[in-house]
Amino acid sequence: MKARVTVTLRQGVLDPQGQAIKHALGTLGFDGVNGVRQGKLIELDLDDTSESEAEQKVTAMCEQLLANTVIESYSIEMVA
Amino acid sequence: MKARVTVTLRQGVLDPQGQAIKHALGTLGFDGVNGVRQGKLIELDLDDTSESEAEQKVTAMCEQLLANTVIESYSIEMVA
Repeated sequence: MKARVTVTLRQGVLDPQGQAIKHALGTLGFDGVNGVRQGKLIELDLDDTSESEAEQKVTAMCEQLLANTVIESYSIEMVA
Repeated sequence: MKARVTVTLRQGVLDPQGQAIKHALGTLGFDGVNGVRQGKLIELDLDDTSESEAEQKVTAMCEQLLANTVIESYSIEMVA
């Protein structure tokens, strides 16, 4: 079973990486870009065959390691 | 119009960040993790109202800046 975890900065948290990308896009001539936010994508390959069990495990992983829940939020998507 | 770009390392390209996460998960007691790959998620907020036009623009951004196409592949998802 595979899981896709996306970790993004919470709204209101400053995102210097995103701002750097926005600035670089402007330099390259891409206009009309109002905002850029950068996050992380983590793909996990798990042994579990039960979706609910795997999801529970991945939630625990996010809380303990993958996301800093003070400034980041995460979403989990199970892939067959 | 918003676009979500996911940039992931191509298969076969070594992913030390993913390996570090896998190792850390093992240390925390999470077993049954066969593999971890880490990628990037970039959310763009664009002026364009036409989806096809925006997608074309985002593709150009990926080729020129957002992804290193030698070692990374990208996928674009338009969000209303």
